[in-house]
Amino acid sequence: MPVTPAPQKTIALVVRPNTAGIEKPVGGVIDHLQGAGYRVVFEAETAAHLRMPGIEAMSVAQIGETASAAIVMGGDGTMLGIARQLAPYTVPLIGINLGRLGFMTDIPSERMIPVLDDILNGKSDAERRTLLEGRVMRGGAMITCGLAVNDVVVARGAGAGMVELKVTVDGRFMYNQRSDGLIISTPTGSTAYALSAGGPLLHPSLSGTVLVPIAPHALSNRPIVVPDSSEIVIEIVSGRDVSVNFDMQTFASLVHGDQIIISRSPNCITFLHPEGWSYYDTLREKLHWNEYPSGEGKLK
Amino acid sequence: MPVTPAPQKTIALVVRPNTAGIEKPVGGVIDHLQGAGYRVVFEAETAAHLRMPGIEAMSVAQIGETASAAIVMGGDGTMLGIARQLAPYTVPLIGINLGRLGFMTDIPSERMIPVLDDILNGKSDAERRTLLEGRVMRGGAMITCGLAVNDVVVARGAGAGMVELKVTVDGRFMYNQRSDGLIISTPTGSTAYALSAGGPLLHPSLSGTVLVPIAPHALSNRPIVVPDSSEIVIEIVSGRDVSVNFDMQTFASLVHGDQIIISRSPNCITFLHPEGWSYYDTLREKLHWNEYPSGEGKLK
Amino acid sequence: MPVTPAPQKTIALVVRPNTAGIEKPVGGVIDHLQGAGYRVVFEAETAAHLRMPGIEAMSVAQIGETASAAIVMGGDGTMLGIARQLAPYTVPLIGINLGRLGFMTDIPSERMIPVLDDILNGKSDAERRTLLEGRVMRGGAMITCGLAVNDVVVARGAGAGMVELKVTVDGRFMYNQRSDGLIISTPTGSTAYALSAGGPLLHPSLSGTVLVPIAPHALSNRPIVVPDSSEIVIEIVSGRDVSVNFDMQTFASLVHGDQIIISRSPNCITFLHPEGWSYYDTLREKLHWNEYPSGEGKLK
Amino acid sequence: MPVTPAPQKTIALVVRPNTAGIEKPVGGVIDHLQGAGYRVVFEAETAAHLRMPGIEAMSVAQIGETASAAIVMGGDGTMLGIARQLAPYTVPLIGINLGRLGFMTDIPSERMIPVLDDILNGKSDAERRTLLEGRVMRGGAMITCGLAVNDVVVARGAGAGMVELKVTVDGRFMYNQRSDGLIISTPTGSTAYALSAGGPLLHPSLSGTVLVPIAPHALSNRPIVVPDSSEIVIEIVSGRDVSVNFDMQTFASLVHGDQIIISRSPNCITFLHPEGWSYYDTLREKLHWNEYPSGEGKLK
Repeated sequence: MPVTPAPQKTIALVVRPNTAGIEKPVGGVIDHLQGAGYRVVFEAETAAHLRMPGIEAMSVAQIGETASAAIVMGGDGTMLGIARQLAPYTVPLIGINLGRLGFMTDIPSERMIPVLDDILNGKSDAERRTLLEGRVMRGGAMITCGLAVNDVVVARGAGAGMVELKVTVDGRFMYNQRSDGLIISTPTGSTAYALSAGGPLLHPSLSGTVLVPIAPHALSNRPIVVPDSSEIVIEIVSGRDVSVNFDMQTFASLVHGDQIIISRSPNCITFLHPEGWSYYDTLREKLHWNEYPSGEGKLK
Repeated sequence: MPVTPAPQKTIALVVRPNTAGIEKPVGGVIDHLQGAGYRVVFEAETAAHLRMPGIEAMSVAQIGETASAAIVMGGDGTMLGIARQLAPYTVPLIGINLGRLGFMTDIPSERMIPVLDDILNGKSDAERRTLLEGRVMRGGAMITCGLAVNDVVVARGAGAGMVELKVTVDGRFMYNQRSDGLIISTPTGSTAYALSAGGPLLHPSLSGTVLVPIAPHALSNRPIVVPDSSEIVIEIVSGRDVSVNFDMQTFASLVHGDQIIISRSPNCITFLHPEGWSYYDTLREKLHWNEYPSGEGKLK
Repeated sequence: MPVTPAPQKTIALVVRPNTAGIEKPVGGVIDHLQGAGYRVVFEAETAAHLRMPGIEAMSVAQIGETASAAIVMGGDGTMLGIARQLAPYTVPLIGINLGRLGFMTDIPSERMIPVLDDILNGKSDAERRTLLEGRVMRGGAMITCGLAVNDVVVARGAGAGMVELKVTVDGRFMYNQRSDGLIISTPTGSTAYALSAGGPLLHPSLSGTVLVPIAPHALSNRPIVVPDSSEIVIEIVSGRDVSVNFDMQTFASLVHGDQIIISRSPNCITFLHPEGWSYYDTLREKLHWNEYPSGEGKLK
Repeated sequence: MPVTPAPQKTIALVVRPNTAGIEKPVGGVIDHLQGAGYRVVFEAETAAHLRMPGIEAMSVAQIGETASAAIVMGGDGTMLGIARQLAPYTVPLIGINLGRLGFMTDIPSERMIPVLDDILNGKSDAERRTLLEGRVMRGGAMITCGLAVNDVVVARGAGAGMVELKVTVDGRFMYNQRSDGLIISTPTGSTAYALSAGGPLLHPSLSGTVLVPIAPHALSNRPIVVPDSSEIVIEIVSGRDVSVNFDMQTFASLVHGDQIIISRSPNCITFLHPEGWSYYDTLREKLHWNEYPSGEGKLK
């Protein structure tokens, strides 16, 4: 009696462009996955820049509908780009770093093969990350919109004076803020630009969104964390050449009266980590929490 | 046909001690409430220091079991003390400030009578605030415990060098931190000591707890916000004269190896605010968010 | 025997443009000074926008060579502009604020007449403020230069990623810094943009210059104060649309390899303050040092 | 004709106590110096704890009057202690670190012999560091005094609420500050406790003193740098168990009305560094200025 074979699982590869020598580790991953019975495909842009023939290319939408997982080889920037595009789907993401350790690409390339095996065999911890969605409104109509894994940033133009922003949260007036700009960040983004601007770290499982002012005029304009169910409205009150960006994708030319409406996206993304993974291990490594700027002491 | 009268509702008054001239506004509140048909009682300590005869005194436990509401007249310190004691009960709290506006005592005494009327007639917004509970463990046994509306603070002794604390969250090692100490704060406490030490503001409805290091040795030891469902364990690794306090109630004489286990209390407290109340109004007022340290600009 | 009359002293007036109702206080100052025997002139731009006929106009250079003092009526911005232009001369500056108190325009308009009398009669404290001068070098040649009373700011373009700057002080490599930009500030500028970006206050009599990074990527990139005799060289290593500004006068289009060379100007400016004036009084007033964000306490 | 031999130069050794295996590098230094014709002596406490017989011991005063240089082997703490004691003399100090690199002990032990040779042969850069001196006054009389290479710290007691301090600089009232305490730091101390509390870095050649508030109640109480010629007076206005310390040497039991008067010491200390030494090299190394907390970028 014939046995119906299990359908072959598809794994998509997304690889950072312009990285010398990357073909070798990519080839290693492909060989290993194919040997384990997976169908391996390249995300379309990866296929275009890698020029490794013989591997099928798929659009992001096809990956979203087909793949069991997407493996990202590169750094946090590469992960950021594909995560935003795959957010409408449920494909989990696995990040392999090809340089320094990333916050999201947390599997070192030296150990990638056995770790991938474990993860694909279910020895993994799934972690959900929220995204923000933003709409830019002018005269009652939406003129652009965007998604952000890290942050939405409203900022003054270069060479311009301060911007003044009116911030309203869940219909309550928060303040008029004069500053270089305002960062609205997810927990994921709290280790990125928001951290440089003086924001707190937010654990990824916190249901919170942080507003971090950039060089605020009022010294008491401190970062504030609100529930991620909040709707945040930012209105441009004054300032020249004001722009908004979503994960560094910039939309410029905001004018007075424009509003940016920000809320949590109904979609989210899922990272697969090695079993036993700890967010704090990554923080300690990335933020040098076991090294000290002065003194003679040592940890015991 | 006889009408069964509605049972008389009890309102408890808690008043800040040592406040010259306080009898007059207190008397005004009592007269008004009694005139409206309420039974008015003093919390026992209030009764002792106020010496206004003719008003019944009740213990906190009796208030907790009997009263429909407790009105606190004083400042945030008075509110903090009684809120912690009433946390096991469900009596809502109403705060009237008798000096400068407080974060929790947000009804100005000038307008207290009509605002109280509205609140007691149901024109109010109820707001729940979480508390932290902490247990201090030595050799497997609990040696003391406490509740905190604002914060739990572990700190070095005066004249001692840094303390080193090992911090674990939900069983995951976070870091060994060398500093003057560590503040574990509720959203309520985020406007108190944690703010002075560089922490972010947390909206009261955020389900989060913030860890704020005090003068940390490592410059990257930034405040971190975790879900308030987290269990935080702080172990004393080194340092002399280390103490822990709960809302400024100090327990000293911690020794190396002692652990403080902190989690959200199953109890919470309820504040009643005037209808339409906004947390941001209080923040703006208290933090001077409409005043600017330099420049010539004005808000439009 | 005939008495040779003392030569008439010239006082220049510099007035903020576009200020409704300003003619009245300006007229009051003019009448009073003329009554006291002074020759009063308008700075040329002031003459153009004020349209108060009958008062002679002078260029800044003529004022520099002729006037005994320049009275600035407006805010810190007006003072900043004229101070930079008058720096090559020795004319002292007197600042009258016409709105909120300024750091440099510290005489309230309500009390201006008696205070001006005192100052012009020698009951004054002279205070010297240093300036920075900067040259922008490309391929060994200077392409632009500028003077700054407050600060020289090198910053990334809007919508661009971080800028990377190589900073060298007195020929010693300090660091490569990745950030939104770098502020090089005088003590005068330490209460302006540098303060918003997290810099310390520098007393005006300190012989120091402060480097304040804006949202630096490395958390340990803290503000650093160097002697104002230092030569600071900032080289653009990477970044798009990088610009430099001197007191907010922007020169854009810097390219990789461009260097900005910053040193203390040999010139300085002199402010005349009412006798007994204290810089700390201004700081307290402007920074709300007697008001507190939380708690119940009061100053004794 | 007989030649008068040059008098033998004396070099003092100061060595960190309780350091396992330290006899070997110390012996190496002694042998080398004796071989080069120097008379080598131990500072008295070093002699007591090292137990290396055959080397003469000298009091700090004798070293101050006799030695050509003092070599400190240990860390910044060891250097701090001896530097304060030798401040009244002119003996220059050379710091060899025996663990992690120090800010003041900047010669790695691996390279100490050739570097010492160079320094003792004049291939060195001398660097002067200022000290602070403080007097504690009660009822017009001095009750204690101290010297500080790093800082003078006035702080609240553990378990006590905030301290309130009245700060006056050069006879001008600065502010009443409510906080955990106030750090008055030299440039040398600006990389120590003051840095943890949020202070700026001060280049050692800056003639400045920085006041850094510890967890100040008012968010605008920022660090302020004043000329080091300033006299700073701190008066205890309120607070329990207030103490003052000089380089961590604590004097407790301050009472309300006590004043601490702080000024630059007329003495200073001299460090000898290898020729071409740069303070910024040490900063970069100690503060990880070439490492980044996030992102993928690399320095070029």
